Formats: sequence, C-alpha cells, structure tokens
Amino acid sequence: MEKNDVQRVSFEDLKNFCAQAYQKVGVPDAEAEIVADLLVRSDLRGVDTHGVTRLPIYIQRLQKGYVRPACTISVVKEKGPTAFLEAHGSMGHMAAYRAMEKAIEKAEEFGLGWVSVKDSGHFGVAGLFPMMALKKDLIGYIVSNSAPMMFPWGGRERIIGNNPLAYAFPAGQRQPVVLDFSLSVVSSGKLILCRKKGERIPLGWALDKNGLPTEDPYEGYEGGGSLAPVGGHKGYGLVLVHEMLTSVLMGGKWTKNIKSLYEEDKSGIQGTCHSFMALDPDCFIGREAFKKNMDRYIDSIKESAKAKGTDEILVPGEPEYRTELKLLKEGIPLPPNTVKELTAMAESLGVSHPF
Amino acid sequence: MEKNDVQRVSFEDLKNFCAQAYQKVGVPDAEAEIVADLLVRSDLRGVDTHGVTRLPIYIQRLQKGYVRPACTISVVKEKGPTAFLEAHGSMGHMAAYRAMEKAIEKAEEFGLGWVSVKDSGHFGVAGLFPMMALKKDLIGYIVSNSAPMMFPWGGRERIIGNNPLAYAFPAGQRQPVVLDFSLSVVSSGKLILCRKKGERIPLGWALDKNGLPTEDPYEGYEGGGSLAPVGGHKGYGLVLVHEMLTSVLMGGKWTKNIKSLYEEDKSGIQGTCHSFMALDPDCFIGREAFKKNMDRYIDSIKESAKAKGTDEILVPGEPEYRTELKLLKEGIPLPPNTVKELTAMAESLGVSHPF
Repeated sequence: MEKNDVQRVSFEDLKNFCAQAYQKVGVPDAEAEIVADLLVRSDLRGVDTHGVTRLPIYIQRLQKGYVRPACTISVVKEKGPTAFLEAHGSMGHMAAYRAMEKAIEKAEEFGLGWVSVKDSGHFGVAGLFPMMALKKDLIGYIVSNSAPMMFPWGGRERIIGNNPLAYAFPAGQRQPVVLDFSLSVVSSGKLILCRKKGERIPLGWALDKNGLPTEDPYEGYEGGGSLAPVGGHKGYGLVLVHEMLTSVLMGGKWTKNIKSLYEEDKSGIQGTCHSFMALDPDCFIGREAFKKNMDRYIDSIKESAKAKGTDEILVPGEPEYRTELKLLKEGIPLPPNTVKELTAMAESLGVSHPF
Repeated sequence: MEKNDVQRVSFEDLKNFCAQAYQKVGVPDAEAEIVADLLVRSDLRGVDTHGVTRLPIYIQRLQKGYVRPACTISVVKEKGPTAFLEAHGSMGHMAAYRAMEKAIEKAEEFGLGWVSVKDSGHFGVAGLFPMMALKKDLIGYIVSNSAPMMFPWGGRERIIGNNPLAYAFPAGQRQPVVLDFSLSVVSSGKLILCRKKGERIPLGWALDKNGLPTEDPYEGYEGGGSLAPVGGHKGYGLVLVHEMLTSVLMGGKWTKNIKSLYEEDKSGIQGTCHSFMALDPDCFIGREAFKKNMDRYIDSIKESAKAKGTDEILVPGEPEYRTELKLLKEGIPLPPNTVKELTAMAESLGVSHPF
C-alpha cells in the first residue's frame, strides 16, 4: 500500500477501533460501542465530514474534560408523551441516542413522543437518530441548534446556526426515506475547500462581513462572513424556529453561546440542545398499511417522467443507502491525512489500529 | 369614490359580509363566522392572495356541491395525544380549524397533541391555524399537502405540491413569532404576474416543461413547467416529507390526485390532508418562562448589528402583525376588480354589501 493511497477499512474493524479509542479515555464499554457505531455509520453512508475524521477532536475534548466520558442524563420533567432531559455536558451522540430512545418508548406507549434534551454536545449526523425509530416502524424526527455560523436575515453578527432537522420514515419493499439537512445553502467546509482551490463561489452561498452577497469563499466564512440560509428569508425563519423548539423551549444555551468543537471550552458543557419526536402510524392508517403506502408513493415519484438529461429520480436517503451497500462490501475509504491522524492518535492512546 | 380607486372596508364589515355570503349558500351560522374571520384575517395580515379575492370561488364550489356546507368531521381513530379525523369534503378552513382545536385540547391534557385530518379542502392561509394555539400559550404547528404545481427533483411531471408548513410561538412583551411558508421559491401567482407584465424571471424560480431551468414565466408555470422548490433538493425532500406526514400517513389523496380550486370536481372531495401539532411549554421551561425567553431571544436577534443598507432585522410574523395594526385602523384595501367580483356575487346571492 502506497503512502498516498486511500486506504479501505471494513465497517466492523473501523468501528472496533473507534470503540477502543473511546474506552481508553474513560467511556463505558456499552456507550463506546454506541458512539463508535454512530461515528463509523456516518462514513458508511458517505457523510465523511462527520465520521471518523472527527474522532481525534472528540477524543481530545474527552481528555481535556470538555465532555463527560460517561453519559449522565437526568429527567427534569416528564408528563405523558413528553420528557425534558438534561445531559450535563455528556457526549452529544449519547445524549441524542438516549433522548431518541425515550421518544420511541413514548410513541410506543402513547402513539406519539416528544423529548427535548439540553446541555448536550456535537452529535455528528442528525439523520442517524430518527433512523432509530425505523426498527419499530415508527416515524422519527430530530431538530437541533448548533454552533454559530450565520447572520440573521439583514444582519452581520454570526449569532445563529444552520440548525439541522432530519426525518426518517419506514417503508416496505422500498428503503426507508431519510431526509437530513442543515439550513445553510452549503456547509462551511465547502467554502474552505473553494478557498483552498482558489475558486470563486456562486452568489447565494454566502455573505461577507458587512452582510452583503459575496463570491469570495474566504470573505464568506473564514473572513467573518456568513453562510447564506436555504431559501433566503424562509430558511432564516426556520433557523429561528429550530432554536425556539430547542434552547428557547428548555432555557438552554442559544446558538450564540455555543462554542465550536475546535474552540477551547473549559466550561465542560458545549450546551447544544435537541428535540426528538416519534410518531406511530398505528394511530393513523396502521404500520403495515403505512409501509405499503410509502412504497406506492415512492414508486409514483420514481416512476414519473424524467427531466431532459436525468436518468433517475431519487428520494431522500437513497444516495446514502447505496453508498452504505457499496462500502459495506468494499470497505470505508480513508484518505492519507485521516489515516495519519488516526494512527498518531492510536499510538498516543496505546490502541491497536487497522491501518 | 372613483370606479378605479382602491376601496377600503373595515375588518368587521368585510367579515360580516363574508359570513352572510356563506350563510346564504347553506353554511351554518357559527361556521360561517369562523370561516369569514379566517378569510378576512388573511387580508388583514396582508396575505391578500388567500383572502376575500377567493370568496367567489369558495361560494361557487359550495353552490355546485363540490364542498360540504356544514362541516362534518368523524373520528377514525383516537389514542392518547393523537387523533385521526376524516372531513368528508368539508370546507378546508373548517376542517383545519376543528383539527387544530383538537390538537390544542390534546396538548392541554397530555402536554402534546398530534391531529391529522384527511378529505379536507383548500384552507387559505396556513399560519392562522397554529396561531390558534397562542391563546393558550402553546406552540402550534401545521403541515399540509396541496394541489400539484411542481416536478420531483429531476422530473417533468407536475405531481408534487408546494406543501406548506407553519409554526406559531407565544411571546411575552414581544409579538408571537409566526412562520408560514410554502416550499416553492415563489408562488405561481408571481409567475403569472411577470408573464402579464412581459418580464423575465430569475433563474432558480422555475423549470420549463422539460424540467430545465427557465427565465420565461409562461414556460415556468402556465406552459406546463414547474415552480422550483426552496433550496433545490432540500426543499424537494421536505415536500415529500410533508406528503408522508399527511396523505401517506392517513391513506388520503396524494397531491397528484388533488384538483385545484379552479377545476371542476364533481367528486365533492377535494381531498387535501393536513396534520397539526400543539406543544405545551409547561412540559419544559414553563409557559411564563418560555414567553420571557422568547422575548429575550427575539431581542438578541433584533438588536444585533445590521448589514450594510439594512435598517431593521425582522423576525417571522412581524411584517404581518404590522400590516394587521395598520389595516385595522385604515380598513382593508380592495382593488377595483375584487370589488366588482364581490359586488356581482353579492347581488346574485341577494346579500347586502359594504362597497
């Protein structure tokens, strides 16, 4: 294997490696398994920006005491189908996992569940949590606030996040529909990449530090600018709504007070807030009938006439599912930089690695 | 008053006029009051595309038997905080009103309510229904499918709608936040207006009948094209999700089977499907604390630095609220065409009119 080649590692090997790394810094075994699975599943689904490339920073933050190694969740309030949880700076992945578990339990009992959790942290890929509802044939939903990266509409202070939402819907013969997106037109990573390549960006992606449209990727983010919200004022409105459904609802940290993963943060509580919903189709058409209806609906979309130059119409989650099948067979591709960072981390932790 | 002047009519007079028209075609008094209030409130909030200008078509559809004059709602299923309703082709405004009432009752009992209703019809302005939750200091939400006006992403058949969503959040000293939007970049009305004026449209608003971007407003809608979804594939995904949360969940009519208000439809069931949620902040930070936190959050957004050339940062619902205050004082402005149509309708119904 050449030094500059992409290396391929199987899902299982990479997951075991991550779990061991988490265990080494004090994460309980069962939780290390869960977080490692979520992390490597992100790579498996092609969302590699939120996968193992983040492991070193997650481990560092655990070592520095910025995150609790053992997940501690307390119930602040609980009433019927709702629960209000506090995560005390636990790992975002675990806080979100436990909260979604609870929303699912609520939906199994009441037909519907809404669980909000505050004082959580960065949780990676939003869509993986509503997908937990699929095992029970329930509909899952998540909404979260996030670190600040955008201006309010008409503003020039970076005080709102691209606050993601995600949904998962079970289907029958078809694959589940999973919609997962953030409320910026593109990610900050995309702007940084364009800046590195010396490329301009299309108008509509970002604003400069004065709040004016820019084609310069540096001005649009690293230079103090703002990612532009999806759909202009519509996406801006939804960003605010997502804040109100999470931190404002719980009295948690607003986006403007959340530090990014890469900032020093001795408070020990990154403080992200999330809300989760699960809904049981048995309260409506019925679980089995719903899955059949999903199949029929997906078919009707996919089988409709294609635009000139388009071969296939996709539904949300389809590209990620195809990547998953492919990478389960071929292994997960890791670029040389990632392998280098993970190897260095493994050696400093004294963990054996699969590279 | 010149024939070509805009006429101003007070909210109360216009509402009474609409209520009388509805009563004349067999709508029970109490329901006529509710629908008239919703209709004229749309104009009052500046959403005049969905206000009294639609009264003649609503009345015509009632006369032709395409809509039930008396609202008939049956409960298909009910479990804890959820309910599944069937509206049997009742007026959309009434079906949505009753369903939101039920979601609010559920939230008062359980902290959370989700109510879905099928076989409804056109209901006007989505945001008015979640706003019903504000009287109880609850959070309100609505999602709906709609008549077909868009292609799937990569398609060229008009089989999906611009399926709106809306949220309402109570505040304290500040006005409630009301976010209400459809998932197309612009409305079909805007394209029709551009075509009438002989103007081109910006790329990104619409696709032609082959599914390719167009700057021609006729090609983009009336000529068989498609409104473009907000945020490209993100908005497209949300359109599908909104269908799954409504018609797919209930086994109701999918968008592709829903006729527009302006098509003949002897089935008597337009068939729109909606879902409603209400959430009680008492299950989280508490109602009073939530309203205070909303105020603080709104202040933090509005008081942040402005972009170059921007005087004020707005939050969702603020422009509509200001229009409401202004028009309550000045009266609702009606263009000559609308006055002419409403006068003709009033005369044929034998109803006195305020023009």
